[in-house]
Amino acid sequence: MSPGFDVEPVRWEGTLHLLDQRLLPDREAWVMCRGVSDAVEAIGDLTVRGAPAIGVAAAYAMVLAVPDSGGDLGSAMTSVRDGGEALKAARPTAVNLAWAVDRQLEVASAVQAESAPGIERLRDALLESARSIHESEVAACRRIGSIGADLVPDGASVLTHCNAGALATGGYGSALGIVRGAVEAGKQVHVWVDETRPVLQGARLTAWELTRAGIPNTLIADVAAASVIARGDVDVVIVGADRIAANGDVANKIGTYGVALAASAHSVPFVVAAPVSTVDMACPSGDAIVIEERDPGEVLSIHGQRIAPRGQVAANWAFDVTPHRLVTAIITEAGVARAPYPESFRYLAGGT
Amino acid sequence: MSPGFDVEPVRWEGTLHLLDQRLLPDREAWVMCRGVSDAVEAIGDLTVRGAPAIGVAAAYAMVLAVPDSGGDLGSAMTSVRDGGEALKAARPTAVNLAWAVDRQLEVASAVQAESAPGIERLRDALLESARSIHESEVAACRRIGSIGADLVPDGASVLTHCNAGALATGGYGSALGIVRGAVEAGKQVHVWVDETRPVLQGARLTAWELTRAGIPNTLIADVAAASVIARGDVDVVIVGADRIAANGDVANKIGTYGVALAASAHSVPFVVAAPVSTVDMACPSGDAIVIEERDPGEVLSIHGQRIAPRGQVAANWAFDVTPHRLVTAIITEAGVARAPYPESFRYLAGGT
Repeated sequence: MSPGFDVEPVRWEGTLHLLDQRLLPDREAWVMCRGVSDAVEAIGDLTVRGAPAIGVAAAYAMVLAVPDSGGDLGSAMTSVRDGGEALKAARPTAVNLAWAVDRQLEVASAVQAESAPGIERLRDALLESARSIHESEVAACRRIGSIGADLVPDGASVLTHCNAGALATGGYGSALGIVRGAVEAGKQVHVWVDETRPVLQGARLTAWELTRAGIPNTLIADVAAASVIARGDVDVVIVGADRIAANGDVANKIGTYGVALAASAHSVPFVVAAPVSTVDMACPSGDAIVIEERDPGEVLSIHGQRIAPRGQVAANWAFDVTPHRLVTAIITEAGVARAPYPESFRYLAGGT
Repeated sequence: MSPGFDVEPVRWEGTLHLLDQRLLPDREAWVMCRGVSDAVEAIGDLTVRGAPAIGVAAAYAMVLAVPDSGGDLGSAMTSVRDGGEALKAARPTAVNLAWAVDRQLEVASAVQAESAPGIERLRDALLESARSIHESEVAACRRIGSIGADLVPDGASVLTHCNAGALATGGYGSALGIVRGAVEAGKQVHVWVDETRPVLQGARLTAWELTRAGIPNTLIADVAAASVIARGDVDVVIVGADRIAANGDVANKIGTYGVALAASAHSVPFVVAAPVSTVDMACPSGDAIVIEERDPGEVLSIHGQRIAPRGQVAANWAFDVTPHRLVTAIITEAGVARAPYPESFRYLAGGT
């Protein structure tokens, strides 16, 4: 079995099932979503997280927006549109969420325009489309892994931040997809895993996923990344992305920008791995990206244990923006984008 | 009462008492050290931490190395020298520890050279010297605070990493001494507090100390520092130091280097506050500074709660080195050092 193919964060089995990523690595439990509101809640509370994965989850959740029975197509369409709005509002930064919802709204509109549309037909079309989005995301990650593997030398040490793995995508992973691709190509790879406070996606998810795939990895506190890079112990930094602006600015998990500054200071390649669906050509630059602010409680406590004085004030931005000048390359399933990014993205879009 | 004068991490009351910084902010408990081995353990396990504070603690601990009664001066001197070795070995990076031990060994040798030396006289001389070191450290911090306050504009936001406060020094603080100095001068100051994984000195100690002194502060995960700086929300970064090389390279809590890179990228002054005792003129550059590696368990769990998969491999360096070219100024009690640092340090040494 290929490494990581056993990790699937999103499943459709009669309804939407999500691997509860809040409980990993200690428990593998699934959350069943029976309606859109369940999915909105699961996206908001990080049961499912990672830009491509929440896109796939939202695509399936749109199926749940179709009323079970009764009613006319018009009211079903209203329900689907309302569901789409609620899903988009669940998290503002990752573009894949809005992208997947918009794709499903187009599918719904196309059904409405058919000669004999019906609610069953609407549900079937949305499910078929969701499955297609899901399969495309997995295929995109495998292709990213295959393309990106060339950038990882045999014996390399890769540093990654947050989790851009199978758990964050339809499966396989974007940044970790490249690591998997290199390993599948027979290379020895070691990964430095940033723990990624405050939600610890690195310590909890990336470490778990890599070890499960048999890939050697070492966990470090986020604060250690710059000095590990300075010591020459990192050959390439590979991270995912939540939204990429048309100029190549990359919004990703908070802390990514600091890692990019350290990589740049020591001439270590800083590589972003993301499906084309993460590139938002309507967004001119990072300044236009809305950065989600989350509950300060995520900073103030860990696993329910308070780590600061009672009543402490805290701030908790979920993402930061790495300017394009620090980005060595962006690996998509359509190929490798490099500066100048607007031209590179247009070329890749033409090539797919 | 001046802010922070109520925070004293090290006290001598018949023997050495240390505020147990592992239990803050939830409990204020004191650890009593009856012998050198108690102090060695307390320094190693971070009951007392912060370069100047462990220097002061070690100076008092040398008094405990003198046998209580009986024996000749020769065996007492052996005990003092052995105690000094054990204390120096407790933590390798902070120079103040070795500096304080060496100061006490000189005092002991001077007593031995007296016409009628005795064990009581040795103990009294070491205690007098320890008290003098302690008072000098507090006075140095107050002077650093007074000098450095000029660098903090009214209404400024300061970002700090780890705890270089009253808790880390004899009292008052070095980096936080500057904040206190600015506040005492009537300025409004807000402090961004890096939580400082893995041991959370920022979340647990700096936030506690600032709030206790009535100074507004906001806790952030370490990963957020670079983007807070990028947004223009930081006027000056002020940190402490564990050892400063002759060329101005600064060893400080792991993560300091990343903050310095971000400050440099956005032309925000990066200021180091440290007593002259932290400058090690025998150390030519940061390359010569031994970086302590601590138990990976500090990364793998928080407050005894495991945050990573069972059996996870982790690395845990306690310090990093910020190269002198990123350091805007070093504030000592003797004045402000700036590049070129070797000349600046020599000038300040001549001036004291």
